[in-house]
Amino acid sequence: MLRKTFCAALLAATTFASFSAAPASATPTQGSGVAWDIVEGLTTEIGPRLAGSEAEARARDWAQARLRALGFSDVSVEEFKTLAWQRGEEHARLTAPYRQPLAITALGFSVPTPAQGLKGELVYFPTLAALEAAPEGSLKGKIAFVDHAMRPTQDGSGYGPYGDVRRKGPTIASQKGAAGIVIRSAGTDSHRNPHTGATVFAKDVKPIPAGAVSNPDADLIARIASRGKPMSIDLKLMGKPFPDAPSGNVVAELPGRDPSLPIILLACHLDSWDLGTGAIDDASGCGIITAAALAAQKDGQTLRTIRVLWSGNEEMGITGGGGDHYVKVHGSEPHAVAMESDFGADKVWQLKTTFAQANAELVDKVKAALWPLGIVPHDGPTEGGADVAPIIAHQKLAVIDLGQDGMHYFDLHHTPDDTLDKVDPIALQQNVDAWTAVLKVIANTPEPIASVSAAEGGE
Amino acid sequence: MLRKTFCAALLAATTFASFSAAPASATPTQGSGVAWDIVEGLTTEIGPRLAGSEAEARARDWAQARLRALGFSDVSVEEFKTLAWQRGEEHARLTAPYRQPLAITALGFSVPTPAQGLKGELVYFPTLAALEAAPEGSLKGKIAFVDHAMRPTQDGSGYGPYGDVRRKGPTIASQKGAAGIVIRSAGTDSHRNPHTGATVFAKDVKPIPAGAVSNPDADLIARIASRGKPMSIDLKLMGKPFPDAPSGNVVAELPGRDPSLPIILLACHLDSWDLGTGAIDDASGCGIITAAALAAQKDGQTLRTIRVLWSGNEEMGITGGGGDHYVKVHGSEPHAVAMESDFGADKVWQLKTTFAQANAELVDKVKAALWPLGIVPHDGPTEGGADVAPIIAHQKLAVIDLGQDGMHYFDLHHTPDDTLDKVDPIALQQNVDAWTAVLKVIANTPEPIASVSAAEGGE
Ligand SMILES: [Zn+2]
Ligand SMILES: [Zn+2]
Ligand SMILES: [Zn+2]
Ligand SMILES: [Zn+2]
Repeated sequence: MLRKTFCAALLAATTFASFSAAPASATPTQGSGVAWDIVEGLTTEIGPRLAGSEAEARARDWAQARLRALGFSDVSVEEFKTLAWQRGEEHARLTAPYRQPLAITALGFSVPTPAQGLKGELVYFPTLAALEAAPEGSLKGKIAFVDHAMRPTQDGSGYGPYGDVRRKGPTIASQKGAAGIVIRSAGTDSHRNPHTGATVFAKDVKPIPAGAVSNPDADLIARIASRGKPMSIDLKLMGKPFPDAPSGNVVAELPGRDPSLPIILLACHLDSWDLGTGAIDDASGCGIITAAALAAQKDGQTLRTIRVLWSGNEEMGITGGGGDHYVKVHGSEPHAVAMESDFGADKVWQLKTTFAQANAELVDKVKAALWPLGIVPHDGPTEGGADVAPIIAHQKLAVIDLGQDGMHYFDLHHTPDDTLDKVDPIALQQNVDAWTAVLKVIANTPEPIASVSAAEGGE
Repeated sequence: MLRKTFCAALLAATTFASFSAAPASATPTQGSGVAWDIVEGLTTEIGPRLAGSEAEARARDWAQARLRALGFSDVSVEEFKTLAWQRGEEHARLTAPYRQPLAITALGFSVPTPAQGLKGELVYFPTLAALEAAPEGSLKGKIAFVDHAMRPTQDGSGYGPYGDVRRKGPTIASQKGAAGIVIRSAGTDSHRNPHTGATVFAKDVKPIPAGAVSNPDADLIARIASRGKPMSIDLKLMGKPFPDAPSGNVVAELPGRDPSLPIILLACHLDSWDLGTGAIDDASGCGIITAAALAAQKDGQTLRTIRVLWSGNEEMGITGGGGDHYVKVHGSEPHAVAMESDFGADKVWQLKTTFAQANAELVDKVKAALWPLGIVPHDGPTEGGADVAPIIAHQKLAVIDLGQDGMHYFDLHHTPDDTLDKVDPIALQQNVDAWTAVLKVIANTPEPIASVSAAEGGE
């Protein structure tokens, strides 16, 4: 499009000449406060910080310095080794029936294709169930494509079933003899930014190259598949796993007035996928919990100690991440509650708890504290999140889940688009306010807190 | 984010098993009709079709076949040679004060960096005027970064002044001695998809490597620049120009009842940038004009012949594209009006004309025909667009400009995101209806049509 260009350009030359001092930045939203400054700082000064990478190590240094500057005590890094994964060169193109480049990215724990690419027939499956129904051996030497129709949901529940295309699809495709797999991204946007994320190959299964294309590319493949002509693909995904990579948790405390009481643990994760800068996943979580811990002590120490855990390797920690390592180090210390923020920066809209009946009055106080923020209590199970799940399971802890609005989370999740401009400072602060309100209740009560399962002998 | 995953996965396994036949496609919008089918077909069966490429040649074959199938006569390809440009490997990363990868793409007519990359200081300029104000030689061996603050406008007027950062920035940077230039994309979105587009090096200027980063990356650079520490970049842009590339126009007609009358020319462009599939720029234009030409003859032949021009090399045709070649071939044939559709697929909202006062009644008829579609007449100059500008200038033709809503056009323009899912079939059809309404008036009048400039002796 060039219309109106040349006249406008002439006009513009004059206009520009009369500018004096121009603004230093065109960044549309700017926030302030502890939470914003953490998200801004991590995304600007560190950026992508894949678990096991040198950037994740820099992020740990950054985190320690920031937490000390904010007045936390006992700030320390608890290092551990992990199975990690490194991205390599990656591209793909359809070669038949039409030549089309595809926007693709490898899934974490994908193994590499041959360096000259993996060429073969691309077989279309509309669902994971259709792939599962394929006869044994029917995909030998072929590449499976698995489509799906994930839609946005406020509670993020679409990520369970549709995320399984990523988590389980590669294993199933390998079991059917496939040489590789390409999936529609587990995402709800329509940009040419594919969504990465870890897959898990079952123990007895040969790992295969596995990638995700963006939604518009998956639409294209679906349209071509519907024309009924055989499809071929040329796939190059050079990412590969590597063992014994250095990761680590950053742990820090705000001591309470009574150090003998079980502590409150607040968690986020410091690592991020490499495609974006990890603004919503999960610098925002670290900003929220840290700002709330400080805000809860603004008018004086809380009764209980508040500990923050900026976890290492959450993203690829299925075989042992920061949450597991935390239990190894701190599993014998008494905890009252463990909470995690790892679902972006949009506003909290629902509350779920697994407090025992004995704590009913305490739960009522939490609900009342959240009432002015528009947060509605919901029944139903909740698990707390990957960074705190191990300590929760280990100590049978009660859970408080401050559920964030997930309508747009999977537009950005694990894509290059996970950048600072996606964080709304007002929504971020609402999270801080909600967490602060909860902390003021639970960190100031001496009453023992128990979970439904522990108290009622469940599980 | 892994919360709720494992329980949901267990539930999902059961759910999936009970699925029987799943939908073949998750594509959210589906249209129908001539315009939609052209956009769907070109984006699905051809995809990216950079001027001078083998894909553009395939697109010409496709266009000929489609226009013949639709009943057009005298369908032909009019080939020409052009200066073209080919994309190469491209990446960039900040190396100081923070290590950050950047989402970058080369501008058309950029020259290549050294294969090992171009490393140097990155100097921040908030505006094009600030770059122009830099002292001669002050950028020697450095790389300029030019920021700006383009905002969406309904009439697309932001593309004049802010697009100049792309059009003129590289020339100015080279004149100051810069070894390369990086600009904030001339775009209004916030995705990690940089906007390409041609730049033009002035005759006496040494071409330098020139690229655009996405808006989130430009935000990052601006934030880092505001911290006051020197910035360094490692830039690899291997794209390069090449001469004598094959391009061509596809021309076809729907004959009128009176072949002696000057014809109506409707234009779009067939070439597209290579990053997307050219859905909104400009398969939509070709769909709109072609569907409208047919619809105008639905109840019988129009009085005047309607000719469609699917132009070659509009995007890089600054030094001679399809519009210029059209004049070489058809410049002596009488034309009544030339119109172009090249501003996406959103609804037409304004009408501009340059008809002479003698045609006032005819203009009133056009306005009345557009009234039911919500299209408002506006005063002011209009040029008709790049594909028809040469014939308009050559024959001093009157212009009818059906202005489309541009609020979202520069979110997608020249990015990987220019794909079919961005085309709203209802808005696309509103365009067809508007063009049809205009054609029914102007293609059925025997009255001579003259432009303001021709009739009043202007220009
Ligand atoms: Zn264009
Ligand atoms: Zn165009
Ligand atoms: Zn994640
Ligand atoms: Zn996460």
